[in-house]
Amino acid sequence: MTYCLAMTLDDGLVFASDSRTNAGADQVAMYSKTHTFELEKERVFVLLTAGNLATSQAVLARIKRDIEDEVEESLYSVRGLSDAAAYLGRINREEREKHEDTLTKAGFSVDASFILGGQIEQQPPEIYLIYPQGNFITTSSHTRFLQIGESKYGKPILDRIIAGETSLGDAARCALVSIDSTMRSNVTVGPPIEVIVYEKDTLAFEHYLCLDADDEYLIDLKRTWDDNIRRAFQDLPRFDWEGTRGQKRRGTQMAALRKATQKMTKKG
Amino acid sequence: MTYCLAMTLDDGLVFASDSRTNAGADQVAMYSKTHTFELEKERVFVLLTAGNLATSQAVLARIKRDIEDEVEESLYSVRGLSDAAAYLGRINREEREKHEDTLTKAGFSVDASFILGGQIEQQPPEIYLIYPQGNFITTSSHTRFLQIGESKYGKPILDRIIAGETSLGDAARCALVSIDSTMRSNVTVGPPIEVIVYEKDTLAFEHYLCLDADDEYLIDLKRTWDDNIRRAFQDLPRFDWEGTRGQKRRGTQMAALRKATQKMTKKG
Repeated sequence: MTYCLAMTLDDGLVFASDSRTNAGADQVAMYSKTHTFELEKERVFVLLTAGNLATSQAVLARIKRDIEDEVEESLYSVRGLSDAAAYLGRINREEREKHEDTLTKAGFSVDASFILGGQIEQQPPEIYLIYPQGNFITTSSHTRFLQIGESKYGKPILDRIIAGETSLGDAARCALVSIDSTMRSNVTVGPPIEVIVYEKDTLAFEHYLCLDADDEYLIDLKRTWDDNIRRAFQDLPRFDWEGTRGQKRRGTQMAALRKATQKMTKKG
Repeated sequence: MTYCLAMTLDDGLVFASDSRTNAGADQVAMYSKTHTFELEKERVFVLLTAGNLATSQAVLARIKRDIEDEVEESLYSVRGLSDAAAYLGRINREEREKHEDTLTKAGFSVDASFILGGQIEQQPPEIYLIYPQGNFITTSSHTRFLQIGESKYGKPILDRIIAGETSLGDAARCALVSIDSTMRSNVTVGPPIEVIVYEKDTLAFEHYLCLDADDEYLIDLKRTWDDNIRRAFQDLPRFDWEGTRGQKRRGTQMAALRKATQKMTKKG
């Protein structure tokens, strides 16, 4: 499995990915899922990949080949980010069709999903999620992040923290916590964690991190977060039976359960 | 969907469940998924249900009928908790078989899962997860909680907090946070939230809460947790580009990205 996410914030974009791929429990490997394309001072793209590794590698090779061959439609020729997403959707569909029948017959999935983000000249920075079928969505002022792969474990912390005005640093930290939480709960997501922070209108990559499991910053972040979470628990409001407040509500609650229980136990 | 969880702690057991059921987006209803059975001072059971509502209601009706009819094998006659789990597995299998063919043909799932926990006389308290096929598992000293339904969103906080020595109050609060996080991220899980805290060797239910969305304690807990999470973020270690420390590592990281990027862009 895989977990990648990207965010659109007022100050720019944040991308993060894990690096574990697995086909069954005995075929676990490490692959970077973060790929960058840059025409300095003109256009920058970050591509995150999830799903079938052969399909995503084939799509990646197509993107590079199309750039090298300077074909009519490539990441360096498209007019806007949405055109780049449409281009990626097309080649994703074309690459999957080459192997779909044989893989489906064999009981495998040929699906690959992508997050493509970046900025072209003075157009606003954008991110797009490209589905295995080639269609795609982008973010909105209410929905600031997109996820691919094993996305559920790490979503609640994003839902709580990420908003348009969130600073790029906080957003990147939140992405790390989101991926760390996923790694703790699911063994198919693993380090190193890659993070790219893109500052709006710079048209260049300046903040990139690749954090191994033993990276001092990641260890520091994880320990601090763990400590803070435990502290966050300590001053949560107590239950009635732990203290003195709200005895009344507890009383009524207990009455409700007694009633339900008695009915079930009348012949017990 | 549904989200239920239960925990075995040194001091006793904690059970929690949401109350939303849905068959498609336009068939959303509210059902309690927490059911209790009590032979005072002899045996207590809590049953949490997830999956096909017809199957779980049929199983529940069977349990009550078997108690009322005082049949040979019922929750009030079984020798231990594992026998209760085996009994539940059997009637779950029997009830699903009545409708499996027709529902599967119609494209529906007949699956229902259960968590059954409690204590019989002086035996240790236990919880069991009963699968739709009737087999079952329990907890261990390393794995303190079991979940059914929409379990991924709420798992990371349990992985961080729950251990054998966790107090019943902290465990119940953690269960509420786990369900609240799930409700925020997934609309098929909803209030009221029911919580039962069972103190080891009491053989009676004393702490029960049913918290509606507008319950003052739940609102208080959610607001405090939200504030604490935000505060927990504020003192996480900063990135290099936000401060002054670790310039060296950032330098090497950036070099790595430049190299990768240049290769891709040489003909761009």
